[in-house]
Amino acid sequence: MLPLKNDTFIRALLKQPVDRTPVWMMRQAGRYLPEYRQIREQAGSFLNLCTNPELACEVTLQPLRRFNFDAAILFSDILTIPDAMGLGLYFTEGEGPKFKKPVCNAADVEQLPIPDPCVALRYVVDAVSLIRKNLQGSVPLIGFSGSPWTLATYMVEGGSSKSFQKVKGLMYEQPAVMHLMLDKLAQAVAAYLNAQIEAGAQAVMLFDTWGGMLSSEDYVEFSLYYAKQVRALLKTEVDGQRIPTILFTKGGGLWLETMADAGYDALGLDWQTDIHHARARVGHKVALQGNMDPVSLYARPEIIIEKVKTVLDKYGSGSGHVFNLGHGILPDINPDHVKAMVDAVHQYSPTYHHD
Amino acid sequence: MLPLKNDTFIRALLKQPVDRTPVWMMRQAGRYLPEYRQIREQAGSFLNLCTNPELACEVTLQPLRRFNFDAAILFSDILTIPDAMGLGLYFTEGEGPKFKKPVCNAADVEQLPIPDPCVALRYVVDAVSLIRKNLQGSVPLIGFSGSPWTLATYMVEGGSSKSFQKVKGLMYEQPAVMHLMLDKLAQAVAAYLNAQIEAGAQAVMLFDTWGGMLSSEDYVEFSLYYAKQVRALLKTEVDGQRIPTILFTKGGGLWLETMADAGYDALGLDWQTDIHHARARVGHKVALQGNMDPVSLYARPEIIIEKVKTVLDKYGSGSGHVFNLGHGILPDINPDHVKAMVDAVHQYSPTYHHD
Repeated sequence: MLPLKNDTFIRALLKQPVDRTPVWMMRQAGRYLPEYRQIREQAGSFLNLCTNPELACEVTLQPLRRFNFDAAILFSDILTIPDAMGLGLYFTEGEGPKFKKPVCNAADVEQLPIPDPCVALRYVVDAVSLIRKNLQGSVPLIGFSGSPWTLATYMVEGGSSKSFQKVKGLMYEQPAVMHLMLDKLAQAVAAYLNAQIEAGAQAVMLFDTWGGMLSSEDYVEFSLYYAKQVRALLKTEVDGQRIPTILFTKGGGLWLETMADAGYDALGLDWQTDIHHARARVGHKVALQGNMDPVSLYARPEIIIEKVKTVLDKYGSGSGHVFNLGHGILPDINPDHVKAMVDAVHQYSPTYHHD
Repeated sequence: MLPLKNDTFIRALLKQPVDRTPVWMMRQAGRYLPEYRQIREQAGSFLNLCTNPELACEVTLQPLRRFNFDAAILFSDILTIPDAMGLGLYFTEGEGPKFKKPVCNAADVEQLPIPDPCVALRYVVDAVSLIRKNLQGSVPLIGFSGSPWTLATYMVEGGSSKSFQKVKGLMYEQPAVMHLMLDKLAQAVAAYLNAQIEAGAQAVMLFDTWGGMLSSEDYVEFSLYYAKQVRALLKTEVDGQRIPTILFTKGGGLWLETMADAGYDALGLDWQTDIHHARARVGHKVALQGNMDPVSLYARPEIIIEKVKTVLDKYGSGSGHVFNLGHGILPDINPDHVKAMVDAVHQYSPTYHHD
């Protein structure tokens, strides 16, 4: 493998000195790009796009041809693991992901297999290898997975949810069954991320999209506990290179102190969390990634530049910051606005990295 | 007016000693009650129900006949003010509230009137008088309004929203226009709440349902600033009786310290916020209201009772706690489960109020 030409992202996650703040964007490979929509149409369906390593590689690389991002992120779906467990993932127009066989009871949980990622998720592992090869060491590649709790919400609800009635019902009524399910998911997620690391992922991120729907005590017991378990099972080094890890709980701003003790190198921040306060609370333990409001990308470029400056200024001087949005980019953002954001990070951040 | 037979709710908001923790429930008059659904059907539409003082009074009183709630809350809609401003509120099945004439630009904002509540919102004022009379001093009556920011989101979006693209667009692109709109709304909200107080409301609550969608700095500038302005304009006493005020920002757990300085007597907490930590952070300044996860009411009564005990125990000893859910009750909850919650608060809370 070629050495990294741009390792700013990795260095920032490890809080090593950098010349400028690295930047990438959640969902940077996606619908806001016309070239993505073209490949998506060619693939016929979203799932075809995810399961075809060549197409997944192509859409992963697309945003890097337009913007000076400091990292690539594997293009894939968050629900590949439950699909590999046999739940039958499918997509309906306008309603998001669904499962043909949701998890309904203790028997369903007991029967859940822990999939071998090199078999059932071969298409993801192959995509990672192909992307890593095609990146030619330009920037690092991020692997990712949904968190055990977030995967469990979709598996029990049978798809997206507003109130999380079914999964919380299982959690309240049969906590032991819920714990068994989360334990299996933690093992599956760790194996999946390790397979991505072995195939070439140079950092990994755990997306806990729905951890923020829990009460504080339920978050610790049912989400964070299993994020820790995943972390404990991860490979930490490949060929002498440390593989940094990022934990992102949307709506988790209240719990940063406990999250910072979960063993991850960095925490992702949503846009509601003040990054200045977050750094004061946990910045001695972890790097921080985020956190511009994704909706601000609708505004004029001059305003976007001001918002970038605000986030940089709030984090302040020194390493340990990866610039990102506070959640994924929205599908109808003008790509020129993304360029304004990325260029502004590169233009205005060096001043925060002088001695 | 008759003196209050049960003033526990008022006393707890003012942090005066009480024998037990008072309890009420957001959306306690609502669809989970079969007797509500019957009146709702009789009214023909949700708006007919809101605009008819006799029917609004009847549904306000319904939950008090079933459960030992320590307060009644006016039955009304959150969007009565924008409707009175001429935006034309209507409801579509399954899509929630909509406006015929949403606010699109600076000219629309300039033309917005500040409605006289005793004219344009007479039906609400009349409902308050009627409910207060019918309560016969049994428990206090809570008046309420949406916060200026929350009302503005619906007015600019034209209804509910997921990303708040239009209202945040206006906020980012034309902050002065947004401030003019919020200033008008603050005056309208204060006049509306004062009219409710004059008609008999014994406490008032400001619902900032969508403040939590803002970044920390935008929350302070565009939501909290106007909540403070409302508070400064409110009547604080009627006939020597103090009228306590409650501020509830859903998703505002990160900002409790600044919220506690806004002049309100109490803060509402959503279920994600740990009430023990919240008390340690702000409990010397304000009372706290909340915060059981509304979804836990789906669980068996034995589990509900455990959840009640947890919330009571987390708040701990002494006055300053009003038990509530962390958000409104969901429409398909079994009323027997509500009874289990209310009775458990009354049964288990006295131990926290001994000297």
